[in-house]
Amino acid sequence: MSALQIFGVAGLPEILEGTDLATAIIAAAVTSGSPLADGDVVVVTSKIVSKAEGRTIELADIEPSPFAIEWSTTWDKDPAVTEIVLREAKRIVRQLGPILITETHHGFVCANSGVDQSSSGAHGRAVLLPVDPDASARIIRAGFVDAGVDAAVIVSDTFGRAWREGQTDIAIGIAGMQPILSYIGQVDPHGHEFKVQALCTADELAGAAELVKGNLSRVPVAVIRGYAWERDDEATIAPVLRDQSRDLFR
Amino acid sequence: MSALQIFGVAGLPEILEGTDLATAIIAAAVTSGSPLADGDVVVVTSKIVSKAEGRTIELADIEPSPFAIEWSTTWDKDPAVTEIVLREAKRIVRQLGPILITETHHGFVCANSGVDQSSSGAHGRAVLLPVDPDASARIIRAGFVDAGVDAAVIVSDTFGRAWREGQTDIAIGIAGMQPILSYIGQVDPHGHEFKVQALCTADELAGAAELVKGNLSRVPVAVIRGYAWERDDEATIAPVLRDQSRDLFR
Repeated sequence: MSALQIFGVAGLPEILEGTDLATAIIAAAVTSGSPLADGDVVVVTSKIVSKAEGRTIELADIEPSPFAIEWSTTWDKDPAVTEIVLREAKRIVRQLGPILITETHHGFVCANSGVDQSSSGAHGRAVLLPVDPDASARIIRAGFVDAGVDAAVIVSDTFGRAWREGQTDIAIGIAGMQPILSYIGQVDPHGHEFKVQALCTADELAGAAELVKGNLSRVPVAVIRGYAWERDDEATIAPVLRDQSRDLFR
Repeated sequence: MSALQIFGVAGLPEILEGTDLATAIIAAAVTSGSPLADGDVVVVTSKIVSKAEGRTIELADIEPSPFAIEWSTTWDKDPAVTEIVLREAKRIVRQLGPILITETHHGFVCANSGVDQSSSGAHGRAVLLPVDPDASARIIRAGFVDAGVDAAVIVSDTFGRAWREGQTDIAIGIAGMQPILSYIGQVDPHGHEFKVQALCTADELAGAAELVKGNLSRVPVAVIRGYAWERDDEATIAPVLRDQSRDLFR
């Protein structure tokens, strides 16, 4: 039985706007004694992608709308952050008390449009999700391929879920492999069609990576080695985003 | 950087009612050359737990209600299976076309109450979720501990999600470790409270295990080695089940 190995890439430098993530990750992996290899899946926390892409915003530069001000006053929120959350949203899926579940312009359903005020490098800034996480993943993968390493890339974030407490890391962008593994049409040894029709392995890979990255230890990149994926340079996260017409929960 | 290792336990015998899963898993792990070790997290697919516990049901023994018959006729379903799904449900969360999302008596929100007609060992049977998956996990863990191995146990199943296509494996029962890792009250290096307040590592572990188990390869048990968990023999899956009063999506 072949085993998966999952390890964090320690020793990355502070990520600044313009940092070449592929080069930085390759170098850190070499320094830490586990250079990247063909077939690896490299899971990169969206926060450092956003930082490298300059997707941070000064709260002082934001002029909140009357709606943002009123709601923020009611629920003791920062009106500038609320304004950013609303701008990052395509629509509000649920708004109850201080909770704001939105659908982002990308089509992700999550709390606060994925806007993060927690670790932006300064108190008065927010980190937004990358504009196009698939493109971000493709650029990082291209950097790996240019360096001679055929690795797939997943950009991950930490999202809540319906019905279950606790967040998990999931995939918001992907390059090199499809995010969903389909069993449609296949039958089990007893001749039944599979109950499971399609597995979102990208989310399982992102969650697995979180187990070594942690949120306190600040290791924003992890490598999954030994997972067999099929190369597909057309892959995007789009198949994971359930169309609103098929969605019973928004 | 310490690495996680994840590997499947191959060579399990056919699981029948009464099979001692702990003993069978220990033996298969030894035979496959990777005996269980202290600190392992052993993820067991609920299907074999159900089989060992006799949670299978002959469809011929079921007398469907008029409601089950009418709905099944409309949507080309097996009325006996529909009847079982309804009996396993505490309530119906969504019913649209042929889709039936229920809350099980355990409190899990999933399609068809987790009832599985796919691989029950015969055509005319359905496999139900274990009655008490935490108890199932505790019994397996107790078997490991009796054999001198302090391993945590997760019972997993494959569930769909809101908003995202593709299913993932998640935890429905746990023993030996808490399912949620809380960051509440902790602050990041910049003094902000963490945006992420609690991670459902049990679900991430279950999903990671799926990556080696697969659904076609029929390896129903996987071992995660190198994940640091804190022993807690009071742990259950209960903290993962969002109370209906806190849930915006049912």
